Amino acid sequence: MRVTIERFELRKRHALTISRGTITGSVNLLVRVTHDGITGLGEMAPGDVRETADAAEADLAAWATLLEDVAPWEQQRVESILAEHAGRSAAAAGLDLALHDWLGKRAGLPLWRLWGLSLDRIVPTSLTVGINPPDVVRDKVPEIMTRTGARVLKVKLGSPEGLDHDRASFAAAQEAAAATTDDEVGWRVDANGGWEPEAAVAMAEWLAARGVSYVEQPLARGREDDLPYVFARSPLPIYADESVRVAADVPALADRVHGVNLKLMKTGGLREALRLVHAARAHGLGVMIGCMGESSLSITAGAHLSPLVDHVDLDSHLNLLDDPFVGASWTGGRVVPNDRPGLGVVPA
Amino acid sequence: MRVTIERFELRKRHALTISRGTITGSVNLLVRVTHDGITGLGEMAPGDVRETADAAEADLAAWATLLEDVAPWEQQRVESILAEHAGRSAAAAGLDLALHDWLGKRAGLPLWRLWGLSLDRIVPTSLTVGINPPDVVRDKVPEIMTRTGARVLKVKLGSPEGLDHDRASFAAAQEAAAATTDDEVGWRVDANGGWEPEAAVAMAEWLAARGVSYVEQPLARGREDDLPYVFARSPLPIYADESVRVAADVPALADRVHGVNLKLMKTGGLREALRLVHAARAHGLGVMIGCMGESSLSITAGAHLSPLVDHVDLDSHLNLLDDPFVGASWTGGRVVPNDRPGLGVVPA
Repeated sequence: MRVTIERFELRKRHALTISRGTITGSVNLLVRVTHDGITGLGEMAPGDVRETADAAEADLAAWATLLEDVAPWEQQRVESILAEHAGRSAAAAGLDLALHDWLGKRAGLPLWRLWGLSLDRIVPTSLTVGINPPDVVRDKVPEIMTRTGARVLKVKLGSPEGLDHDRASFAAAQEAAAATTDDEVGWRVDANGGWEPEAAVAMAEWLAARGVSYVEQPLARGREDDLPYVFARSPLPIYADESVRVAADVPALADRVHGVNLKLMKTGGLREALRLVHAARAHGLGVMIGCMGESSLSITAGAHLSPLVDHVDLDSHLNLLDDPFVGASWTGGRVVPNDRPGLGVVPA
Repeated sequence: MRVTIERFELRKRHALTISRGTITGSVNLLVRVTHDGITGLGEMAPGDVRETADAAEADLAAWATLLEDVAPWEQQRVESILAEHAGRSAAAAGLDLALHDWLGKRAGLPLWRLWGLSLDRIVPTSLTVGINPPDVVRDKVPEIMTRTGARVLKVKLGSPEGLDHDRASFAAAQEAAAATTDDEVGWRVDANGGWEPEAAVAMAEWLAARGVSYVEQPLARGREDDLPYVFARSPLPIYADESVRVAADVPALADRVHGVNLKLMKTGGLREALRLVHAARAHGLGVMIGCMGESSLSITAGAHLSPLVDHVDLDSHLNLLDDPFVGASWTGGRVVPNDRPGLGVVPA
């Protein structure tokens, strides 16, 4: 196969502030895999500071040479090669998505059909409201809800300014939503590891009284030994995000969280994502799918496996000024893949 | 889809005695799924006493009515319907295999390609030597090895006649194999739950000194609380068979066995089999694939996913007088699926 890599830039409509910093956009990579007259497309989106486009491009360039004599359907062989020549998971995801797109195109079927999934299982996605002063939240929430029609909101908390700021921002979001629509609105909260254990329990109690469904990553990655304290006391389900990347991370978390947040840039693609879903389900855990700063290309890849999960948070493409791809549709608050073979994504 | 069911009879060349009884043959079911001009084939093989062809046929007949308006690629929807109208796992396997065969035929690709697997990962399969007096073992081992060319043998122990019988039979098998070939022979042992914990440890020590690779199901199903005793003391890896059926059984066993034996008739088909593999791998467990009294039809289905496992025990079709199907090839001691779409199985 021939693997080629191209950079592209994404600019966010609203800069996104989470507990660790502010993101206004990103440089992502488009990965093309060509073999037998078919080209598969994949996307690498930067996950954390280690996973820049520069670093991922170097990984992909090295892999491209090693994969010259490998066909795109030899995913197991590709995994072995990548295991021997390790790189960033976001780079691996870009390649894996392109291999899956190629396979689906070769088979003439969309991935969700190859996996036997039903699109009517896909639940509405949440739209993310970043950390902002209450005044800004009051402006952003109506804008997001009106522009997208979304009725599920995920509020980023864990502000460095503390719990009062978190409470004021969340209350502002709920007030603004109530002023925007009479529809029922679904709420979830993501602390991105910004809380201490006691604060996490206090916030979970406060948020439970306000109709929140679950809390994501209350404690920082590395604080997993403190999760049982929160798990035992929280009235809300706890989902791990930064604390879980791959299927092998699941067993150690299974007694201290209610669910896991899978992201393609963490798992290194769809193949490990499916394994993560199955490992989590074997433990009776809930599963959500989230995203990094992704275009419609990798968002659509996530949408293909979203019939397997309980909660969907595939919204980054809805916050772009210039999404370079068109793929999954946005209908009734749901991100739904189409009937075209493979990922079903084309340039905008 | 249209689901039709047909009985067929399998007669074993050698009657197979295990710790629970003797099997000379079986009545199995051929499941046909037809939709859009494509027919997928699946097989139900009786697992235990509950799972007769009669019982499975009743399950399948009930499901056939419920599935009239469902297409074969809607596997997730089929699973929901079967979850609401529960039946035997072997019946579910017959249906699941037919759905996968249909899907592969629709996509024009063999299942192993749809799953991205590499056939060169497939390890040699073991041939089973049942429980027999040492004299009989001395006759059977050369016959099996000469007829099939196999160089990996799985010896059934756990004889009701006790450990002396087990030791004498195993020693006879090794003597007979040494008299048959100068090749290196691989050995594994399956007690089918026929031992007590202390006996299991003693036998594992005795067998380890004789080059055995691992021991399957030393204790009876239901005795899982005694497995840690064996696990802590056995010099050989312990694989669970009767103690594990589906992915959700894995977490509770992960601290007391080294691996699991998946069988399509236990998982209810390939879909759950893949989930079981992934759940086991997430725990760092080994995986083997085994079989019930199956023809080449479901043996071939198992062969398609065998690149994912460490040990293969797909041999029941090699002990049939009249295998009604042709599918995976038998080359160099390995059971290898072909390049035809779907399962790649046709009537003999």
